[in-house]
Amino acid sequence: MSNTLGEKIKVTIFGQSHSEAIGVVIEGLPAGFRPDMEKTEAFMARRAPGRNEYSTPRREEDRPQIISGLVDGATCGAPLCAVIRNSDTRSRDYEKLKNIPRPSHADFKAWMKFCGRNDIRGGGQFSGRLTAPLCFAGALCLQILEQMGITVGAQILEIAGMPDKPLDPARVSPEELAVIASKPFPVNDDAAGEKMRDEILRAKRDMDSVGGIIRCYAVGLLPGLGEPMFHGLENRLSAAVFGIPGVRGVSFGAGFAAARMRGSEHNDPFETVDGRVCTKTNNHGGILGGISSGMPIVMDVAVKPTASIGISQETVDLKTMENTTLTIEGRHDPCIVPRAVPCVESAVAITLLDMLI
Amino acid sequence: MSNTLGEKIKVTIFGQSHSEAIGVVIEGLPAGFRPDMEKTEAFMARRAPGRNEYSTPRREEDRPQIISGLVDGATCGAPLCAVIRNSDTRSRDYEKLKNIPRPSHADFKAWMKFCGRNDIRGGGQFSGRLTAPLCFAGALCLQILEQMGITVGAQILEIAGMPDKPLDPARVSPEELAVIASKPFPVNDDAAGEKMRDEILRAKRDMDSVGGIIRCYAVGLLPGLGEPMFHGLENRLSAAVFGIPGVRGVSFGAGFAAARMRGSEHNDPFETVDGRVCTKTNNHGGILGGISSGMPIVMDVAVKPTASIGISQETVDLKTMENTTLTIEGRHDPCIVPRAVPCVESAVAITLLDMLI
Amino acid sequence: MSNTLGEKIKVTIFGQSHSEAIGVVIEGLPAGFRPDMEKTEAFMARRAPGRNEYSTPRREEDRPQIISGLVDGATCGAPLCAVIRNSDTRSRDYEKLKNIPRPSHADFKAWMKFCGRNDIRGGGQFSGRLTAPLCFAGALCLQILEQMGITVGAQILEIAGMPDKPLDPARVSPEELAVIASKPFPVNDDAAGEKMRDEILRAKRDMDSVGGIIRCYAVGLLPGLGEPMFHGLENRLSAAVFGIPGVRGVSFGAGFAAARMRGSEHNDPFETVDGRVCTKTNNHGGILGGISSGMPIVMDVAVKPTASIGISQETVDLKTMENTTLTIEGRHDPCIVPRAVPCVESAVAITLLDMLI
Amino acid sequence: MSNTLGEKIKVTIFGQSHSEAIGVVIEGLPAGFRPDMEKTEAFMARRAPGRNEYSTPRREEDRPQIISGLVDGATCGAPLCAVIRNSDTRSRDYEKLKNIPRPSHADFKAWMKFCGRNDIRGGGQFSGRLTAPLCFAGALCLQILEQMGITVGAQILEIAGMPDKPLDPARVSPEELAVIASKPFPVNDDAAGEKMRDEILRAKRDMDSVGGIIRCYAVGLLPGLGEPMFHGLENRLSAAVFGIPGVRGVSFGAGFAAARMRGSEHNDPFETVDGRVCTKTNNHGGILGGISSGMPIVMDVAVKPTASIGISQETVDLKTMENTTLTIEGRHDPCIVPRAVPCVESAVAITLLDMLI
Repeated sequence: MSNTLGEKIKVTIFGQSHSEAIGVVIEGLPAGFRPDMEKTEAFMARRAPGRNEYSTPRREEDRPQIISGLVDGATCGAPLCAVIRNSDTRSRDYEKLKNIPRPSHADFKAWMKFCGRNDIRGGGQFSGRLTAPLCFAGALCLQILEQMGITVGAQILEIAGMPDKPLDPARVSPEELAVIASKPFPVNDDAAGEKMRDEILRAKRDMDSVGGIIRCYAVGLLPGLGEPMFHGLENRLSAAVFGIPGVRGVSFGAGFAAARMRGSEHNDPFETVDGRVCTKTNNHGGILGGISSGMPIVMDVAVKPTASIGISQETVDLKTMENTTLTIEGRHDPCIVPRAVPCVESAVAITLLDMLI
Repeated sequence: MSNTLGEKIKVTIFGQSHSEAIGVVIEGLPAGFRPDMEKTEAFMARRAPGRNEYSTPRREEDRPQIISGLVDGATCGAPLCAVIRNSDTRSRDYEKLKNIPRPSHADFKAWMKFCGRNDIRGGGQFSGRLTAPLCFAGALCLQILEQMGITVGAQILEIAGMPDKPLDPARVSPEELAVIASKPFPVNDDAAGEKMRDEILRAKRDMDSVGGIIRCYAVGLLPGLGEPMFHGLENRLSAAVFGIPGVRGVSFGAGFAAARMRGSEHNDPFETVDGRVCTKTNNHGGILGGISSGMPIVMDVAVKPTASIGISQETVDLKTMENTTLTIEGRHDPCIVPRAVPCVESAVAITLLDMLI
Repeated sequence: MSNTLGEKIKVTIFGQSHSEAIGVVIEGLPAGFRPDMEKTEAFMARRAPGRNEYSTPRREEDRPQIISGLVDGATCGAPLCAVIRNSDTRSRDYEKLKNIPRPSHADFKAWMKFCGRNDIRGGGQFSGRLTAPLCFAGALCLQILEQMGITVGAQILEIAGMPDKPLDPARVSPEELAVIASKPFPVNDDAAGEKMRDEILRAKRDMDSVGGIIRCYAVGLLPGLGEPMFHGLENRLSAAVFGIPGVRGVSFGAGFAAARMRGSEHNDPFETVDGRVCTKTNNHGGILGGISSGMPIVMDVAVKPTASIGISQETVDLKTMENTTLTIEGRHDPCIVPRAVPCVESAVAITLLDMLI
Repeated sequence: MSNTLGEKIKVTIFGQSHSEAIGVVIEGLPAGFRPDMEKTEAFMARRAPGRNEYSTPRREEDRPQIISGLVDGATCGAPLCAVIRNSDTRSRDYEKLKNIPRPSHADFKAWMKFCGRNDIRGGGQFSGRLTAPLCFAGALCLQILEQMGITVGAQILEIAGMPDKPLDPARVSPEELAVIASKPFPVNDDAAGEKMRDEILRAKRDMDSVGGIIRCYAVGLLPGLGEPMFHGLENRLSAAVFGIPGVRGVSFGAGFAAARMRGSEHNDPFETVDGRVCTKTNNHGGILGGISSGMPIVMDVAVKPTASIGISQETVDLKTMENTTLTIEGRHDPCIVPRAVPCVESAVAITLLDMLI
């Protein structure tokens, strides 16, 4: 079940970085929904590579071709399949990596799991490229959620330790999220974004990489969504988001900071606002006991620095079992955080829609 | 599917804090396994309340009665069901909470989800008490893992900001984990543990509460366990651990700290040790791309301060929709972190065994 | 996942014929539902043994004790667990069967699967006794379906070749089904039932056994329930019903007879009746392409003759691998068909409710 | 989950009869497997239309294009996606059917389920055409099973009441199955096949259709495969086979005939053959209690007469709700049984491999 996300909205992703194509089958979309392809491609462009100086120069059309599931532009109840052709692949870059695993990549793990049969070219099925079909599915789910009055959006909370100004977790609005989503560099405070970009470029010059944190919000959910114990919102959202390459941590509301707070500080007092039960603060991040509270969902996602760096690294030749060194050439992002933003939004949108339908 | 964890080892937990009994059905245990009941009860005692000054005075036998699945003390391939009677319940404590949700508890969420039909007594199905059957199942899985050469164990990494000395994530041994597990207060450095206990008692005196972080290790896994994308180790482990009440964040290896590291610092160089491929450091926490690397698994779990505090709090009367205040009486832990340690070990053990079988 | 039926209404059955208890955990029942225990026990009594001359003399209370999931007699959203104590077990009857598999029982299969660790006493987890908790769960689901205007009921269509008069599959009414369900021997035509009973008693006198066919109807479903392809009504209903011991075949509508019909004879012409689209005949059994048509669901279930017979049979000693003979003593039904009727109704009711919720 | 079959070998089918393409994603194939494309296409040709006088004249290339999952012709652990372009579609044939449901087709059901948004062209996602990707997946699974010493093969047991000579269910061999599979009309006794073909052509001349029964065998399974109760071989196989359009009944071993046998006749005596425990007869069809016995699996599948017939039929106009008549033109098989044979083999092969891995 490795490549499938969701139960009713079921998203199955296929492909490898250098296979003929990658794509996605989406089951369970409500019949009669008309995907807005312009919006969809604009959303996918936020993830696409080669758009600016701090992302890999690999350029791709990333134009999804829908080959089933529509009649006259509207969903018909049958699974929707979209295919994205792979092009501009340089498989020869990877020849020499066959037996030389790159540190902190999945290479060695895949080699062990698949007995050396795994596709090493471009990271194979572990490539970040597989997030393109994820974003396609996410774009559709976001459009359906929007029709239901639910907005999902994320900001880059920090890169290389440079912090953005967080939105107010108790009062974040769809409008604020839309503004951030429209920016080429999705932060709240553009000056903070400038500092992040400087750090990324500095790492690039050093042939190194940097990581960061993404904060994702979901606004508009009614209280009562989710299940207790093992199939609640936290369980489902974290399981989805850990499917994005490079994610190393997930937290809700105050998250790890909650561990250093006292209960009197962390607890969120209730109050009524316009006849609805709200909390004054939102340390609980909109979820308690697996179930939505009606407050905005707030989730933090830690993204590691890109594993592919130009600096020489120590590794092992799996054929000879001798220590060796490796210098990765190819084309790589010094920071994947900006491109990971729509991926996180997609994983969240798919999961929420799956739980809502 | 809310109360079920796992696919092949399938653990279904039932009961409410004040129902006649709580319990668990475990499907998929290998036939011929003999649960060591002494070990099982000793493990469950680590979670049980009423053992010392910083946990709730509610005392329970917590003695699981196995009513199916065994023949002459060994599993027979049929589901094993264990029942734990509830006793020493004081339901009247909860009468007045019927319409007055406690801040940062699941009360309001459950009230919305179940249209006011939810069991409010002792938190109902959201009670930490439901972790008793989880620990019963965990104890059995830990015993089976041990027979397979795999050790799961956790330390309290910090409480109220007081840090323990972490074990070396790249070299942690089963012996070290056994030493910590044998302590009444499971830390590496007992002096650090003393400071944590002081903070807990200080919070108790203030009628307040504190949180903390648990670090869980799994040693002995071969490389290659797990699946790419949505059903990897991170996805499955995080989904399991978020089933424990009070957990607000989960991370692997360097976790959120990875977000501030450069790739050259975060990447783990490979080397051969005794003919096996290892990494010198373990910032990846034993998992990459959803698949085990053969290095120890290292997972951090953030636990919030106990929501039940003796200080007066602002809330809302759901019947009248008027703002009001609430002072929680009952009996509550000023810190649930120590009792959550075997719960985390259980969730991890069940999930690993499920993925191994 | 062997002992779990359903996805949203999830029924997990545990126990062995001679374990301390058997029981069931039901997840997903709507909150606020009040099980009618009198009705429930009356329904379960239809399955219970020892009621008349053609069923095993083993007598049991079969009184389910609900140990979780209710508050003041109503469901609260937490899993409902019911336990039925085993009593009147004679385990010594089974000592000698340990290595001597009974023909056409699961003994040999279980011995191979569980490496000889399986519980042989009374058939262990393969015992028909495990249908008692199935019927408990079925009784609850039938009550909820009834509140939704849906009636599930079955008739014995034939035993030992003696046919009952079938109800009109296109026009069967809830009232007709209620009349049959109220009979001690659930047939449409009591004279036919008399002949069936004669055949059962004749087989009993011969220390032999007979089988039969059960026809189950579901009335009141709207068109549109179900999914295409692999999770439609036929897939789900057949998978559920094959969980009942002794079932060897399942068909819908005209079933195997359809194989000998021409399309012009088998196709059901549409017509409007009171503004609803109906079919004049119901050879499709209320389901096409996995989806309900709004016509009554009609499903036939073939039940084999009881495997336990008093006549000497050829078998093999699994220890010595020598051919031997076996005469089964114990207490056994010469025909399980009458007791299987509420089991089929239960499997259907649970599955329909699961798909409706 | 409607379009997905299997849990570890997970087959997700997409497409509609007249969408741009149909196809399948197969997850879980063992890494290093080299699909034999010649064999695969030969197997798919057995299902393909337009090959002879008794099947629809619609001709298709049905040539699957593999777009992911292979490296140098071998599986790499990533999901394998195959796409089959649709061509030779005549959508205008279906214009007038938009609101006029064809009797005994899924049209009306789909119209109700998808609120009139369903794809009516060629039956949309309910079309028998969707069995082409099923057969592609089946062909691959059959090849892997063959490498494991397991053979799956089927014979046409009867058409229009004309019976074939059944193979000996207790002693059927892979060689016998291979002989039948190699025939253009897969029967045991070619004279019987001749009579069946005569009946098909007679029905065609009458603008009518006929049905039949397929018997599928699986040889080479060890005892012990399967799970008790709800996830046994019968549950899983029947659920899979009911996913094939037109299937109305499924039975194992003696099937519905068992209902008229006595226990002494139906029970299969054990004996040892070459040191293995076998049964002399095989009325149990290789499965008891959900678990394989090591004897050949024998499953019967009832297939209804083709719903599309040239004779005028009564139906209803869903827009006006008035009774009307319909004469189906288009191109249709007078009997789908021969083309359904590889579909049944595929559903069985996928399910067995899924349970074996």
